[in-house]
Amino acid sequence: MKKLISDLTEYLGPKNVIIDEPDKQPYVVDWRKIISGKACAVALPSSTEEVASTVRICAAHGVSIVPQGGNTGQVAGAVPGEVGESIVMSLKRMNAIRAIDTKNNTMTVEAGCILKNLQEAANSAGRLFPLSLGAEGSCLIGGNLGTNAGGTQVLRYGNARELTIGLEVVLANGEVWSSLRGLRKDNSGYDLRDIFIGSEGTLGIITAATLRLFPQTPIRHTALAALPSVDAATELLSRCRDEAQEALTAFELISGACLRLVQQNCPDKRMPLHSIDSPWYCLIEVAHRGENGRSLENFHRIFEDVIECEQASDVLVAQSLAQAEAMWGAREMITSALAHDGKCIKHDISLPISEIPAFVRETDELLQARYPGVRNFTFGHLGDGNLHYNVARRASGDDADLHAMQPGLSLLVHDAVERRSGSISAEQGIGRIRTADLIRYKAPLELQLMWAIKRTLDPNGLLNPGVLLPSFEPWMELRGVSSADRCCR
Amino acid sequence: MKKLISDLTEYLGPKNVIIDEPDKQPYVVDWRKIISGKACAVALPSSTEEVASTVRICAAHGVSIVPQGGNTGQVAGAVPGEVGESIVMSLKRMNAIRAIDTKNNTMTVEAGCILKNLQEAANSAGRLFPLSLGAEGSCLIGGNLGTNAGGTQVLRYGNARELTIGLEVVLANGEVWSSLRGLRKDNSGYDLRDIFIGSEGTLGIITAATLRLFPQTPIRHTALAALPSVDAATELLSRCRDEAQEALTAFELISGACLRLVQQNCPDKRMPLHSIDSPWYCLIEVAHRGENGRSLENFHRIFEDVIECEQASDVLVAQSLAQAEAMWGAREMITSALAHDGKCIKHDISLPISEIPAFVRETDELLQARYPGVRNFTFGHLGDGNLHYNVARRASGDDADLHAMQPGLSLLVHDAVERRSGSISAEQGIGRIRTADLIRYKAPLELQLMWAIKRTLDPNGLLNPGVLLPSFEPWMELRGVSSADRCCR
Repeated sequence: MKKLISDLTEYLGPKNVIIDEPDKQPYVVDWRKIISGKACAVALPSSTEEVASTVRICAAHGVSIVPQGGNTGQVAGAVPGEVGESIVMSLKRMNAIRAIDTKNNTMTVEAGCILKNLQEAANSAGRLFPLSLGAEGSCLIGGNLGTNAGGTQVLRYGNARELTIGLEVVLANGEVWSSLRGLRKDNSGYDLRDIFIGSEGTLGIITAATLRLFPQTPIRHTALAALPSVDAATELLSRCRDEAQEALTAFELISGACLRLVQQNCPDKRMPLHSIDSPWYCLIEVAHRGENGRSLENFHRIFEDVIECEQASDVLVAQSLAQAEAMWGAREMITSALAHDGKCIKHDISLPISEIPAFVRETDELLQARYPGVRNFTFGHLGDGNLHYNVARRASGDDADLHAMQPGLSLLVHDAVERRSGSISAEQGIGRIRTADLIRYKAPLELQLMWAIKRTLDPNGLLNPGVLLPSFEPWMELRGVSSADRCCR
Repeated sequence: MKKLISDLTEYLGPKNVIIDEPDKQPYVVDWRKIISGKACAVALPSSTEEVASTVRICAAHGVSIVPQGGNTGQVAGAVPGEVGESIVMSLKRMNAIRAIDTKNNTMTVEAGCILKNLQEAANSAGRLFPLSLGAEGSCLIGGNLGTNAGGTQVLRYGNARELTIGLEVVLANGEVWSSLRGLRKDNSGYDLRDIFIGSEGTLGIITAATLRLFPQTPIRHTALAALPSVDAATELLSRCRDEAQEALTAFELISGACLRLVQQNCPDKRMPLHSIDSPWYCLIEVAHRGENGRSLENFHRIFEDVIECEQASDVLVAQSLAQAEAMWGAREMITSALAHDGKCIKHDISLPISEIPAFVRETDELLQARYPGVRNFTFGHLGDGNLHYNVARRASGDDADLHAMQPGLSLLVHDAVERRSGSISAEQGIGRIRTADLIRYKAPLELQLMWAIKRTLDPNGLLNPGVLLPSFEPWMELRGVSSADRCCR
């Protein structure tokens, strides 16, 4: 280990290899403070060549690597485990925008660029880069790609995967694979790009990407609709999609309980509504280029019809930017309001949109039957079939009470997701904290295929061990996979 | 081989195993008649279970399988080679639409469904399935997915890959992997779907898929613009994208030479224009839901501005459905007009859109310098950076003359593509006829990664041998890959 550190220090320079314990802390603890890991060093390479050489040096010493972006993930996928035999590789010094091509509507950027800086660079070039999420001021694009990040505009523009047309990746042996050609169509071979995107740094280290840019959408119409049920929300979603087509940029579901919690716990927050007594709300945004008057008129018409046929009890259409911001502000304050309330059991699930009303009804009931008094704070990206299904302590209970319920309660929720063909991780990934869930819910054949790919691309298990894939040996035993399957499968 | 055929016949029934030579013909010759292969039998399974069992029977006999959809591909990827040791597996009896979910905007369909039938089924359900291409009346969706088909609406909706959110695949060992859950977001593991899409049947046999549906776009505005240069065409594309945003559904580039050839060789064809003397044309379509008057007015305004600043010499906006159909008809007649003219050397290439004007200028000049008098008939999907760069015989030459030029001429074109970071196969794939090109232009590391994945998923090489991937042994020798790399890499 000493030799590794001296080799790295010699190569990267002492400033770029952190070995002092206090200086390592921000890199080894995830931001939710669920995992507090150990690393023998933190390496900070500044170019693709430096990343590749660092990988080769680590490989020569048999030391594994935990690639890290902004360390803003929800599932502790970018921090090391407790053993302390890995190095953390932070990509933050690789922060150049290599090219912006407005004719091709692409930009090629390095993994260490902060997402917000990329949005701004696109904007300065008269284009839109639509990836947008809570952590955008500090998350790095490499991490967004490693986790296939979602966010609030997926409905219109897709996940990080759909926004990417090329990658540069350092492989486990230090070779560099690149597809940064900026091509929208390329059927000359297997799609390697999408294996790396969302692989949470376990198959390669993404060092750069060519991203798609879009026309700007300066005009935004925002509305908050009060609805009697989740069924009414899915109806309204259908109606908005038909009417606004691709201009429908966001369709967020928020339970009344969430908004009331924001009102109660964030008293400084200017609430968009005076009274919040409806069981459900939808925050809806349509964005486009122009003809403000005409399109606003259409936007209003959708809601007039909806109120008329009693699908919505009330709809507030923002009359100013400040009002629209108040609506989004309330949505974005839910996480803080929940934190203020105490511990909370979070589930980041996806379902076919058609299954969501029955899922919410059924799971809420099952929870109350088994854990009477727990409080649901459900919200999420209804347009993508993605719910943040959160459960908080009983009004009379405390954090310890909730903590004791956690294993059984999450099992109940995830089993309900599985019964309706959903996923236990819609956008946050598996990281270190959901690998056991993966074993429970993933089909054995799919786990086997994932392992086969892992062994093919990282035969010595040097990249982000313990993240995403459950460790192979106990899993093999559990599933009865024969040792003959270990090689090449 | 006899035992294999008797096993298959016993399992599938004699009607579903074709062994007579004349009956096998439609399955062993590709539709362009470039490859006339041989197969020991043609198997016609009708369910996923039958596909899986057929694969297991073949695997037990060590016999390879050529999966086939509608056999409409351009690169002979769905027909066997000359040796005759494979079976062809036609998926055409697997033609059920398993489910249409209008709330989730998805449909789950079997591989043997004809594309046009799927478009119609979506339409009957009040939705749009936007994959659209020349062969849609006879191609099967399984083939579209196996080749990641493109077509005329990629600009707005993406390739077949982007239209697919789940797959069911029979693997080389007869196991069935399925992801038909209908989820728009699922970050619980590696993306396996995109490895199979576009793999031309070499990694697994796609038996079903869950496809995305979209709102219908009943109002279409179509225009044909006469332009002085390809530069002007890319300018107009930028302008149309900014103005119409996602409503811009098609932006096709057509050289004046192509339209004049249609006029000359298809005299029955009603031409959309009286005189065709411009060097370039663009066929532009905007499609949306409604407000005909207003949006038509906007559509006209784009072109008024364009003519004013002399980027276009003339623009004809279709005033009726018949006129729009005449414009598309002329576009679609180019292939027939070329066939009528004689042999033609075709290149299906993609480039960054920003590189296209210089590529066309430079390559046209290089061609004339080296092969004076050959005639260019370039058209394609400019909005996707995809050109069909066709070269026909000299006016004074014949097919034999052109045939003699072919190797050097294609090399010249493909080398020019490579210099500008393009791809030698934008949408048609590699099949049997472009494997040598792949060796020339694909980075050795990428070929190695492709081979590693092939060996992982199909270790005995049973799926579509000779298609997409150049055979491994000579390639290894060529590239100096050591034998140690054969296993697990």
